[in-house]
This record gives sequence, C-alpha cells and structure tokens, in this order.
Amino acid sequence: MSSPARHGSNQPLAAELRELRLEIEEFNTEYARVLDEGDLETWPDFFTDDGLYRITSRENAVDDLPIGLIYCDGRGMLIDRVRAILKTTTHEPRYLRHFNSNVRVAGIGDGRVSSNSNYLVVETLMEGGTDIFQSGRYEDTFVRVDGSLRLSARHCIYDTLLITNALIYPV
Amino acid sequence: MSSPARHGSNQPLAAELRELRLEIEEFNTEYARVLDEGDLETWPDFFTDDGLYRITSRENAVDDLPIGLIYCDGRGMLIDRVRAILKTTTHEPRYLRHFNSNVRVAGIGDGRVSSNSNYLVVETLMEGGTDIFQSGRYEDTFVRVDGSLRLSARHCIYDTLLITNALIYPV
Amino acid sequence: MSSPARHGSNQPLAAELRELRLEIEEFNTEYARVLDEGDLETWPDFFTDDGLYRITSRENAVDDLPIGLIYCDGRGMLIDRVRAILKTTTHEPRYLRHFNSNVRVAGIGDGRVSSNSNYLVVETLMEGGTDIFQSGRYEDTFVRVDGSLRLSARHCIYDTLLITNALIYPV
Repeated sequence: MSSPARHGSNQPLAAELRELRLEIEEFNTEYARVLDEGDLETWPDFFTDDGLYRITSRENAVDDLPIGLIYCDGRGMLIDRVRAILKTTTHEPRYLRHFNSNVRVAGIGDGRVSSNSNYLVVETLMEGGTDIFQSGRYEDTFVRVDGSLRLSARHCIYDTLLITNALIYPV
Repeated sequence: MSSPARHGSNQPLAAELRELRLEIEEFNTEYARVLDEGDLETWPDFFTDDGLYRITSRENAVDDLPIGLIYCDGRGMLIDRVRAILKTTTHEPRYLRHFNSNVRVAGIGDGRVSSNSNYLVVETLMEGGTDIFQSGRYEDTFVRVDGSLRLSARHCIYDTLLITNALIYPV
Repeated sequence: MSSPARHGSNQPLAAELRELRLEIEEFNTEYARVLDEGDLETWPDFFTDDGLYRITSRENAVDDLPIGLIYCDGRGMLIDRVRAILKTTTHEPRYLRHFNSNVRVAGIGDGRVSSNSNYLVVETLMEGGTDIFQSGRYEDTFVRVDGSLRLSARHCIYDTLLITNALIYPV
C-alpha cells in the first residue's frame, strides 16, 4: 500500500492522481473501442512517434526479458504491423471485446506518468459462445502531446499461457 | 480518437463530459444491481415513459436492422415483459452478475446524452461453475427526469451468437 | 433506485458519495494488485485491527448464515491465515487476476461507510487458458484510519458454487 512515487521533489497531490486516473480510464475506453470495432488503422495514433508496444508473458516480464510475442519500437513499426494484419488475415473471423479496470497511477515526474491496469479481452467465434481470450495487465508510460495523453510505452503482460493464433491482433 | 459531438453550437466542456461519464457509471451500477438481484419489477423505472429497450446481435446492429431478440417500445411494454417473465419462468435457476466498464459519452445536445459502454454478464448454474453468459455493448440515449438520468433508449448489442434460453431476461 | 441511507440526520451530499465511490475504487485496485501479485503478507494491512473477513456463498448470505468457507475475525486471524497458506501451498500454481466494478456507496454514518461492488476473478493454470475462477460481490464496511480507508468488514459473497481448492486464497 505504498504511495505513488514522484520522480522529482514533491509528493503528487491526491487530486492530481485522481484526475490522471480518470483521464487514463477515458484513454483506455477510446483505445478499446478502436480495437473492438476492428478500426486498426487508428490504433497507432494512441502512441507517440517513438512509442513502444510489446505483448509478453507474465513469466518473461518477471524475468525482465525483452522478448515477447509482439515488439514494436516506434510508430512506423506499429503502422507496419497494422498493414501486415490487414493484408494477411486468414484466420477465422471473431469479435473481441475489452474490459478495462483497476487503473493505478504508479508515478509522476519528468513529464511522464507511469500507470498500470487490468484488461480482460473476451472473444466470440462465429459459431459459438463467448470465451476469455486473454487477461493481463498494461504497464504504461504516458506523456502529454498537444494536451492529450499518448503512450510512450505500453507493455501488455498477459497471464494466459495458451494463446490462439488471433494474437496477431494487438490488445 | 474523435471528440464527442455536441448537437448544438458549442463544444461540451471536458468537465461536463467527465461528470456525465461518472453519473452514467453510477446509473449502470444501480441498473445492474436490480437485474443481478432479480428485482425485475424495478427494472422499468430506469426508463422514460416512452423508453425503448432492444436486445439485438452485433450483425443486426451493423446492418441497422431494427429486429432483435427483444424489442420493447415504451414502459408499458417493459412492464408487460416483466410480468411475462415472472409468470412463465420454467428454465433452470441461475445467478447472473453484470460487469460494466468503458463508459464513453458520445454526444450531448437537445437535452439528450448519447453514450456507449461495455457489459459482461456471467452466469452460474446451480450445479456448476461460472461462465460468460453474454458480452456486448450498450448504445444508450439518456434524458434527465426530475434531476436523474433515465433511459430514453437502450440498445443491447451482444457479441455472443450462441444464446441460451435465459435471454428472456433483460441484460 | 433508492438513495443511500445516512444513519444520522442529513442526506449525504452527492459530491460526498461520488468522492467515496472513487476512493473505494482506488482502494479495491490496491487490494486486487496485492492479491494478484501474490503479496499475501501485505493483505491484512487493508483491514482494521478488529476487521472481519468472510467468504460465503450467495445462498448462505440470503439466509443470513454466518458460516462460510473462510471466516477471520480480527487481524490476528488474517495474519494466521496468510502464514498457513504460505506454509502449506501444495496445489497447482496458478495466476489470479481481479476485475473490480460497480462500486456502490450504500450508506454513510457514525464514521462508517457501507458499500458493495462486483468482483470477477479469473485464473490461469500453467498449462491452459484463462477461466473464470469466481464471481461475486463484496459487502463492505469501511472506516477511516489516519486518513485512509480500512475495512472493518469485507464479506465476499460468491455466486460460483463449484469452487476449486484454490479458494484457500483470499479474494
């Protein structure tokens, strides 16, 4: 139950942390909507130009291994990935839906906000019911660009060890 | 990542959108509690007198088809439906629980608020574990009646294609 | 759609209820993080010295039966339980993740806040996918200690009737 750390001198005000928490929730809502609606071309806009995006397992994260299922360093790589997905999607069609919760502001300082939250993604195949696709947590670093939050890093650290091939989609 | 639209002249203030988002969250919490506790007779009170309630599939919603599994136009039809459920429930008893998240205020104007959010409903049968019953999103229009939000329309657009017969219950 | 009750004279202000709701969300986020990361030794710190912790089924709760799967009366019993878990864990390793939502402030008065909320806990076994472990609701009583919320009682009332042996873990 430690307090969030400020990387500078002063403790962040409770009101500042609350405000950031609510703002990150709204960011995640927009982010999830874009992915749930399959609007992949908009997805890179949530990142800064040098934004990092990684999907990796909880085991790799614990061991601090950089490898992962997806690793994109910079918006160019994000855009490339979207193009690759849109060209090569041959797997079974499915619906995804994100449930974001438990946003926690972990630290503020140097124009950066570090935060984590939980995500649950459920999937529906065309002939079946709805099942859990992946649960995990986001470990994020946000910066402010033109007044709005952008991801300078999003690490998606998943619990789920048995991943279907649909993981070529971002979460 | 477009901004919510105001149907009038001015951009809504960020503070107004935030306030509405939090108020809709609290509305959904009350709504979910009533359904989770099986207090069906209270459920129509969340709607205006001419409130619309519809449950339809994502495919129908995309094609803008009005048909759906449930279509109630006005509180009289909501009350009729509740009476029908209470009289005829012959299916296996089960517990339901709602998880509401990702509320987004999409537009404000003419005394109306349009909004969408995600819902996950899990069900527990008497002899088993807990499974996903349905995931989907609410597409809502709210108006204010005596200071409180009421639904003038709630479209429940579900992902889940394989629906058990328990869907005679509202979600 | 009744208003929250104040156990004294005045109606609580809407702003006070909102503030408490947001504060309880942040409390639950910290609580969930500690359990998800397996940091069990920190878990008793969320309770007051005489804090009550109980896990019981929805059926028992409806019948107002005090019995349950876990019943700890006071922090000493919470600490004992943690020690017992850490010593005797022989079951299959698994990851848990909490999704907290639908926090509702039900009453304020006499320095106490009563509240309820929904929880969904998913589990991932080492060789499999992610499944629902348990859904249910917290029925909580909070008090303020040194400015921070602490649980004087948390009743975890689960829907799930088929519980795996992992329930020796708190939720």
